[in-house]
Order: sequence, then C-alpha cells, then structure tokens
Amino acid sequence: MSVLVIAPHPDDEAIGCGGAICLHSDRGDRVVVVFLTSGELGLKKVSRERAWAIREQEARAAARVLGLADTIFLRLPDWSVGEHLKKGAALLSPILKREHPGLIYLPHASEWHPDHQAAWPLVKRALSSVRPERFPTLRSYEVWTPLAAWDQVQDISTVMPRKLRALRAHRSQLDGFDYVAAVKGLNQFRGALAGRCRYAEAFGEAEPHRPSRHSSRTKP
Amino acid sequence: MSVLVIAPHPDDEAIGCGGAICLHSDRGDRVVVVFLTSGELGLKKVSRERAWAIREQEARAAARVLGLADTIFLRLPDWSVGEHLKKGAALLSPILKREHPGLIYLPHASEWHPDHQAAWPLVKRALSSVRPERFPTLRSYEVWTPLAAWDQVQDISTVMPRKLRALRAHRSQLDGFDYVAAVKGLNQFRGALAGRCRYAEAFGEAEPHRPSRHSSRTKP
Amino acid sequence: MSVLVIAPHPDDEAIGCGGAICLHSDRGDRVVVVFLTSGELGLKKVSRERAWAIREQEARAAARVLGLADTIFLRLPDWSVGEHLKKGAALLSPILKREHPGLIYLPHASEWHPDHQAAWPLVKRALSSVRPERFPTLRSYEVWTPLAAWDQVQDISTVMPRKLRALRAHRSQLDGFDYVAAVKGLNQFRGALAGRCRYAEAFGEAEPHRPSRHSSRTKP
Amino acid sequence: MSVLVIAPHPDDEAIGCGGAICLHSDRGDRVVVVFLTSGELGLKKVSRERAWAIREQEARAAARVLGLADTIFLRLPDWSVGEHLKKGAALLSPILKREHPGLIYLPHASEWHPDHQAAWPLVKRALSSVRPERFPTLRSYEVWTPLAAWDQVQDISTVMPRKLRALRAHRSQLDGFDYVAAVKGLNQFRGALAGRCRYAEAFGEAEPHRPSRHSSRTKP
Amino acid sequence: MSVLVIAPHPDDEAIGCGGAICLHSDRGDRVVVVFLTSGELGLKKVSRERAWAIREQEARAAARVLGLADTIFLRLPDWSVGEHLKKGAALLSPILKREHPGLIYLPHASEWHPDHQAAWPLVKRALSSVRPERFPTLRSYEVWTPLAAWDQVQDISTVMPRKLRALRAHRSQLDGFDYVAAVKGLNQFRGALAGRCRYAEAFGEAEPHRPSRHSSRTKP
Amino acid sequence: MSVLVIAPHPDDEAIGCGGAICLHSDRGDRVVVVFLTSGELGLKKVSRERAWAIREQEARAAARVLGLADTIFLRLPDWSVGEHLKKGAALLSPILKREHPGLIYLPHASEWHPDHQAAWPLVKRALSSVRPERFPTLRSYEVWTPLAAWDQVQDISTVMPRKLRALRAHRSQLDGFDYVAAVKGLNQFRGALAGRCRYAEAFGEAEPHRPSRHSSRTKP
Repeated sequence: MSVLVIAPHPDDEAIGCGGAICLHSDRGDRVVVVFLTSGELGLKKVSRERAWAIREQEARAAARVLGLADTIFLRLPDWSVGEHLKKGAALLSPILKREHPGLIYLPHASEWHPDHQAAWPLVKRALSSVRPERFPTLRSYEVWTPLAAWDQVQDISTVMPRKLRALRAHRSQLDGFDYVAAVKGLNQFRGALAGRCRYAEAFGEAEPHRPSRHSSRTKP
Repeated sequence: MSVLVIAPHPDDEAIGCGGAICLHSDRGDRVVVVFLTSGELGLKKVSRERAWAIREQEARAAARVLGLADTIFLRLPDWSVGEHLKKGAALLSPILKREHPGLIYLPHASEWHPDHQAAWPLVKRALSSVRPERFPTLRSYEVWTPLAAWDQVQDISTVMPRKLRALRAHRSQLDGFDYVAAVKGLNQFRGALAGRCRYAEAFGEAEPHRPSRHSSRTKP
Repeated sequence: MSVLVIAPHPDDEAIGCGGAICLHSDRGDRVVVVFLTSGELGLKKVSRERAWAIREQEARAAARVLGLADTIFLRLPDWSVGEHLKKGAALLSPILKREHPGLIYLPHASEWHPDHQAAWPLVKRALSSVRPERFPTLRSYEVWTPLAAWDQVQDISTVMPRKLRALRAHRSQLDGFDYVAAVKGLNQFRGALAGRCRYAEAFGEAEPHRPSRHSSRTKP
Repeated sequence: MSVLVIAPHPDDEAIGCGGAICLHSDRGDRVVVVFLTSGELGLKKVSRERAWAIREQEARAAARVLGLADTIFLRLPDWSVGEHLKKGAALLSPILKREHPGLIYLPHASEWHPDHQAAWPLVKRALSSVRPERFPTLRSYEVWTPLAAWDQVQDISTVMPRKLRALRAHRSQLDGFDYVAAVKGLNQFRGALAGRCRYAEAFGEAEPHRPSRHSSRTKP
Repeated sequence: MSVLVIAPHPDDEAIGCGGAICLHSDRGDRVVVVFLTSGELGLKKVSRERAWAIREQEARAAARVLGLADTIFLRLPDWSVGEHLKKGAALLSPILKREHPGLIYLPHASEWHPDHQAAWPLVKRALSSVRPERFPTLRSYEVWTPLAAWDQVQDISTVMPRKLRALRAHRSQLDGFDYVAAVKGLNQFRGALAGRCRYAEAFGEAEPHRPSRHSSRTKP
Repeated sequence: MSVLVIAPHPDDEAIGCGGAICLHSDRGDRVVVVFLTSGELGLKKVSRERAWAIREQEARAAARVLGLADTIFLRLPDWSVGEHLKKGAALLSPILKREHPGLIYLPHASEWHPDHQAAWPLVKRALSSVRPERFPTLRSYEVWTPLAAWDQVQDISTVMPRKLRALRAHRSQLDGFDYVAAVKGLNQFRGALAGRCRYAEAFGEAEPHRPSRHSSRTKP
C-alpha cells in the first residue's frame, strides 16, 4: 500500500502519526511525507533559507528513523498555508498522481494552528483536480490540540522508542518546552483508555462528506 | 454477521436502509429490527392498542419482504422516546447481549423527528451497560432529512424493487404524501452522484467519539 | 421584478434553481445570471481560454432555454473564488447597481465546493459597498449537497422538461456521472415531500443576520 | 388573521413581542397568548397556588393593555417545561385546532432559560399531531438573550408606551432589576440599527427546517 | 474561600480536579464535593444499595487523601442525571445556600458521558433558584474527553502523588483499564505543554453566558 | 498596566469599549489603539488618501476624549483584513513587543463584518510570532452584533458622556443612522441586566484555547 502523510511543518509527522508510520513501513508499505512548509518561523535569527536547510535536514534524519520512502518539501510560507491553497494544491496534485495513496494522514480540522487547519482544504482541492479512480481513506491526527471525538486508536507500544527518536531528530524545536514528555503523555493517555496498550495514537476523520463520485462503496 | 437495525417507527427501517437490509439478508447475515415505538400517533381515530396491532402487522409484512430474522417491538410511546431513554436502554440491553451485533444501523443525529434524534442516546446508553467485547460498527441512515455529510453509499439497484415492496407494506402510512416517490427520488440522487448505479442509500457515522475501552483498533 | 442568480460555475444555475428561473421568466421577471467563474477546471486538456469559450457558449445555450435576460461572466479563477473576494465584489457591485434586484439566488453556505461557500461572502461584500435602498431577498439553492434545513419549496413540475434541457446544454459536463438523473432524483424527493407535486426545488436562507440598516421591515 | 403567542412565563409575551402584539390587535387580528407556566418560581415565600393567582392576574392586566383576545394558562411546572413536552403538547394541540393561527410567536432557540429553549420542541410536537392544512409562519422573539442573527425588525415606536404599560403590569417581577430600562434599551438599539425608528423588536426564525408536507410554497 | 466540586460519580472529582483540590485544601480553603450519583452502575452483580455503600466508602477514603471538608451524596440514579434535573437542583440548592461557594468545579459540557453533560444544567438551575449575591466562578474539568479548548492550567506537580493516591482509593473502578496511567498521561501532556511543570490539570469555562443579574463585574 | 485595543475601523474602539478605555486611562493605565484599517470605504466619493486623512483625524479627536496614550494606523485595505493577515501580523508584532500589553480588547468572533472576524486570526498570528513571556488577557467586545454569550460586564455609567463624545468625534460616520442612540440603547440594556447600573459594556472571550506555553497559570 502507498501511504501519504501531510505535515504542515517538520515534526508534525512524528508527533501526530510517527508510530503509525513506523508500523506501516515495517509492514512494507511505501510511506511518503509531504511537508507543506519547512517551518522557517520556528527558528529565530536565521535567514529563511538557513532555517529551511536546518529543518529539512532534521526532517530527513527523522525520516530515516521512521523508515520513510521519501520526503517532499513544498516550502509554502510558514503560518500562511491558508493563503496559498492554489499553489499548494498545484504542487500536491502531481504527487497524488504519482503515489496514488490508498491512505492519507493529515492534521484534524480543529487544530489550533492555522496551517494545520489549512491542510484539509489544500488536500481536498488537490484531490478534486486529480480525481483518483479510488478515493483514498483519510485519517486525521492530533498534534497539540487533542481530538475531542476520535474514531480509531492505533497501538504503537512496540515502536514508541523509534517514534521518540524521530521526534528528537527535530532538535531545533526541542528547547521551547518538553515536547517529548507532552507526546509521551498524550500517547499514554490514548493507550490506557484504549485498554491494554502502553502507547497509542488516536485518529479521526478528515471530513465525512465525500465529493460526488468519490463516496466509498461499502459492502453490505 | 449479526446486524441490528434501530427503527424509531415502523417504516423507518425500510426508508432508511431497506436496500442494505436486503443485501445483508441475501448474504446470509442475520438481521433483526428493533422498533422503538409502534407508531401509534401515525394512525388517527383508533385506540393505541389497535394502532399498535395494525402497524406491527405491517412491519412484519415488510420484514418478510426484507428477509429479516426477527422483529422486536419495544412499544415506547410515540414522539416520546427521548423521555424514556432509561426504559428503552433497559429493553435494548438484553437484545444487544443476545444478538451481539457487529453492525448497527440507526437514524442520523440531525433528523428532524425527536424520536430519531433520541435513537443514538438510547443505543449509547444500552451499549455502555452491556460493554460488548467488540464494539459494533455504527452506520446512520437518512429518513426525511438528507444527510448533509455522508460517509458511505451502498448500491441498492438490484434490490430496489424489494425495498419498495417493503415500503408499501406499511400501507397505513402511504396516504399522507407519495413517499414511494420521495424515497425513489433520494435513492436515485444518491446513486447518480455515486456514479454508475441507479439507486443507492447513503450512510453517515452515528458519533465518531467512542467510549473509552471501545475505540476500534486499527491495523496500520 | 429583477432577479439575480449567482452561479459559481456554469451549470450551477440550472441545477440549483433552473426551475425557479423558468417560472420567473415566464412571469415576465427580468432574470440575469452572474457566473463567478467560467469553470475552466471542468475541462481537461484544453487551455483556459478554450475552456472558457466552450463553457460560456454552453451557458448561453442554457440561458436561451431558461429565458434569461442576460448572462455575465466574471471569470474569476475556478476553485479560487474565496481568494478573490475583493475583485469579485468590485465586479459585482456595478451589476447590483444597474439591476437593483429584489431577489438574489445563490448557493447555500454548506455546499461542499469552496467556490460555492465563497458566494455569500462575495455577495455580502458587494451589497455592503452598494448599500441598496431596498435590501434584496436572498434565497439559497442546493447543488450537490442537499440542504439539511430548508425554508421553502417551489413546485417546478410544469417547467421540469425545460430545466432538464438547460441542464443538458452544459454538455461538456455530462460525462462524469449521470447528473440529469441526480437532479431529477433530488427534485422528485423535494416534490414528493412537499406533497402533491412531481418536482420541486428547495431553498434556504443565505444568512438570516442582515447588516444594520437593511433588516427587512415586517408588517405586523 | 389569528395570531398565537407562546410565552414560557407571564411577562415574556410583553418583553419579547409586546409591541408587535399591539400592532396586531390594532389591525384587528385576533391575538391569543398561551402561557406555558404561570411562573411560580418567580415569587418567593408564597405557595404555588398563590403565586399562580398573582401572576395570572398580572398577565390578564397586561393582556387588557395589549388588546389580547384571550389568555390561556397551561400551568406546566416552572423551570421544567422541557420535562413535560408530552403534556404541554397535548394541552396545546386543541388550542391550535381551535385557533388555527397563521402566525406563531415564540422565544428563540438560544435563549438562556431552559423553559424558553423548550418552547419550540413543545410547539413542534403539537403542530405535528395537529397537522394543520396551512403551516403557520413562525417568528422567534428575544427576551434576555439578544438574537445574534435576526431576520426581521418591527417598528414599534407608536405603541411603545403601551408595551411598557403592559410590562409594568407584571409588577411582582419588577424589583429584581430595572427591566423596563433593559427592554427600552434593547428596543432602542434595534430601532436605531434598523434606521429611522425609535423602538423596534427583532425577530428570527424558529427553525427553518419544516416538516415534510409543510414547507411553505413560494411563488416564483 | 469556599470551593464546591460537582462530581457526577465517585472518582470524577479525583480524575478531573484532584490536584486542584489538594492545593485548595492546603491553602486552607474549605472544599466540599457533591456526588450527583453514587455510581451504582459501575459495579456489576451487587444490589444498588450495596454498590452505593462500596462506592461512597471509597469516596470518603479519597476525600481524606484530598483533604475535603465534606462529601455529600445526592444518590441520583446513575446514567439518568439528565432526567432528574429538578430533583437534583432541589437537593443542591440548600447546599449552595449553606456553602455559598466562590468557585465551583464541574465537568465540561462536551464530555462523552450524559451524566457529565447534565452537570451544568443541574447547577445552572440550582444557582437560578438560589440567586447568590455573588455569582461563583465556574471552572470545568476534563475526565475522559480531553478539552479541545482550554482556558487555564494548574500546576499540580507537587501534589500529584496525593492525587494518585486519591484515585486509587476508588479501587472498585480500577480493573477496567489502567486509569492511573491514563490520568498521569493526560496530566503530563497538560504540564509539558504549559511549560516547566511535570503535571497539570486543564480547565475551561462551564458556560460563558451568565444569567442576568449575575454577570461578573470586572474592574477596568 | 498596558492595554491594547484592536479596532478594525475608526469608531469600533469607541462603540465597543469606549467606556472601558475611559476607566483604564483614568486609572493611569497606558491605552493604545491599533486601527487595522482607516475605513476608506466608509466615505463615498473621496480618494482613499483623503478618506484616510479624514477618518484618522476623527480617530485622533476621539482619542483625546478617551485619554489614549497613542493611536496607530496600520492602513490595511478596508473590507480586506482577512486577506492581509500576514502583513497585518507583521505590522502588529513590533507593537506587541514594544507595548507588551497585559490586556487586549478586540471584536468578538461572531461579528457580522468580515474585518471584525479577521481581528482574532491576525492577533493570534502576531502573538505567536512574538511569544510574549506573559500571555495577555483577551477581552472581546460587541459592535453591531450583540454577544449572545457574554462573560463580563463593565459598569461605564460614570464615563458614558465621554464615551458618547468620543463616538461623536467620528462625525463622518454619523449620518447613516442614529448610532449614538444604538450604542446608548445596547449599553443601557447591558447595564439594566447587570443590575444597579445605568450603562454597561459586555465582553466575551476572544478564544478560550490558548497556544501551548501560553495557558494562563491559575492560582488554586
């Protein structure tokens, strides 16, 4: 299976679905992460280009830990994804055509950060221009805003150490607050609630309303 | 597979998921419909008991067309399901224990009728007291309020004649307006949008937020 | 009476309110359709200019069937209306001044397509700059997302054949799925529910909250 | 025309639509107010029966000022209307049959008080059992929670003194805070915004989604 | 200061605001917990009375750890608080009069469990009948549904061991899943996000809309 | 204390929180108003530059009445703030750094005007880039859309004459409708409801969900 992960900034992929990515890649699925921005506003006092270089290098280091097949950087302006949906969708469309993913991970719609909120409109637009034969399954992940309503949990206990290593690869981001502790805390909460697993990731749906022609056909 | 259909009144089961029921029963699934009320307010100028007798008889006639394994009548008061959640859940719980359904159909949460809106709180309560080992999949159907956001469509072209026959079995309800035409219209709309099918039923999710312990475990 | 129809793309006018338009023009009302985009993304493998030519020609053919007094093409970029509200409102304002419509039809706010969602913000902005003496009545129509809550239905049985002919005039759009069947299905559903009419269109309100100075004065 | 006003407690009718009532009765419309409760919790240290007597007497005094044709007291328990929808609807139904109102005023759905929130479910239920040939127009009024989105304003400048006199007739309620000042303030705000009128009442819609069979038919 | 905690079931007080309670009681605040139900459905195969005895004893053991001044058991039926608002408010009102709390903790409105959702309507009703001179501050806590939007966090690192001891005092509830791990995980997530604290509790507002007469007066 | 007021157009500051500003400046707080636009669309038939000159002069006259320490004009395009969030935030950020306000006033999120709706996204973005050590308190004010849910009221009786004088300083805006009457009406409504004060302003919260690192720490 081909899996696509939409990450507004480097580190969102590890925080939100790093465990699921490990499990996918261990199963032999091809997992590609598309970074909408390269997070230049997450670094102070360096040029945009320098910030890109640093964060993309970190993202590639994290990618090796997660077992990604590829990382793609769209370099939309940080904090302004919502104002560049057209450009973003134009950049994403050929990737959708090439990868034709069966499953797409993206941030959920109630995330606090406007770039996270912009992910689904951007993906929706790209999907509409591509019109894939088979509409991919959409799974939304949580970064810093917990999902109030979730749909599925994924036991990630066995790959938690790798997830945390991937997280730590984004080292320029680690000094604001202890976000390894934050991620461990939330994943432990999800795991304990789900029952009998130490760490879990929770997922919701991106948007239940599918475009015409693309509603999934159920078997009875 | 065991399938449970929650119908607030006789005829909701045929309108909302009559096609899906036919396909289930043709596949050999055991399908049971639980009627929350027996729709006594849908008949004028007869006693409640007489109304129950008429509508339950019609429901059983429809059941034969749909291929149901069983029909169960809880006889909650029509238009007052929301005020009898405790009693309704107490009546539903042993049925859940006996049938342990893998899939439950029920009206969606935005339906106009308050009895339809009350279906999910009632089912949620019953499920919580039963605590099934495996939490059933929930699929919500549309009666007279179209789903603005839907999740899945089911091609029911092959069984549409049977669905309509089941609908017509609820004959005491047919004189208000041409509801065979209404149902055919909506199912044709769903089918055409889905592409390449004449008639379809659309389904949403009952509520994405699962109780602790019951979130479905995904495979990566 | 002067009636204005806001259509994000050619064919939305026919799908959403083609029947109402026929009835208006038959009564002698002046009906003008403003197409926000000329739907260039609805045609694959042709230049934007070529796509415009094709779809505008189809729109004019449909206009003749519907009895329109005029068609106006704003040529905002397809799928990007929301990013061009200022330009769109600037183009719409002189039309509002010239036509001073008593009634405006536009897509409802919960439509799936972002261009449909952008119609009301665009119209609201243009109305605010024009400040008409008499604020027009707003009526929102449904395209592919059914209105969950509707306000009025219009019996269009007598003009249904013309509506369908107008629909078929948009011939470049007809091969994706059977959208004549879709439209017939939904209009039949609306008609049957309304009672005693074969086909109907349903309408909601664009936004109940009127700007200061423009709330409609009721008679007691 | 026959007009029905649903007031959860004595004084809501005067606060929310006292001006409109005056204008209706001056035009010769028959206006009847149905009080869901007689507001026994609004009086401290008297028996329920004594409180009923006092407040109903005040309501009848206000009625004479407003020009009501009749006042009807359902005496549902104060603060518990939502738990007595069945009984309330059963009491309201014969009134609907007798009065067959063309217009019904009731509190809007976002009012803070749970009895106000319960008014629409109660009316909806009664209307559904009665199934009037012609579905009445519904107009929702504001008591202490201003309508964030309003639909219509009614100039009540000429009858404002009478509205205030009716308000003051509910004298047992006047000592909590200066609610004549509150009502004058809000009506002045509505009037000034509407332009060129000193006092106005604002109204919204009770619920745009009409039951099947009852959607109002528009003329094109 | 007098602090009141509304807990739908024994253990909600410890999970949702056990840390804050410890800090309050350490400061000398008088903290009283009102248990709406005694959680009889949380114990299988024992009589209601036996379940009450067990869970109330556990609640009193937890109370000693938390330093509560008092525990009060209203014994409303478990899972049915929403159907007993009148009775519950009547039981709560004298407690409000006696304690006149300056601060009330209660579950937030989006909690999954219907008894948690019913807490605010019950408190609102009791407050309205009591009409306290000074309206208390309301703080809503999270049990198993994380707050998607939170307002304040409370560093509870120093009292976390006591909170966990109080949690473990509800021993009849501990075997379903590892809820000590769940609580530790969520509090660690809140603490890490807040920055520089190991464990924290997050709080939202119960309902921003205050009744007339009770809006808090701000200082400029 | 340093107080910042975000006003989309000149006059919003006086309408929404002119009374609170007077009280702040009387207490010795430093109050600065940032005007997002200079309201060029509020003047007909003059050039944009001329309109800016007129309205900024009026704003400065109002500022003298209110006792402001400074007025800052960002001159974003009127009616287009939402399309210039990036530029607006870049202009606001150095102001936040310089003033480090403890309290920010801004329009509430449900205001009808799109520029008012855009205020919070703009402020949120600027705050995120600045990352203040202490996150300011946010208080949202009402202009022409009343707050349906409010959080606090401020008695402004003593400074009402000054508020109205500040309002009248925006003289180019006064001829549309009697907005002094509108403001007096709404403030009288708020004051009467709050009890024992003639005029009051009501405030809500901008958005309860704080960014990570910035949740306010409560004392127990």
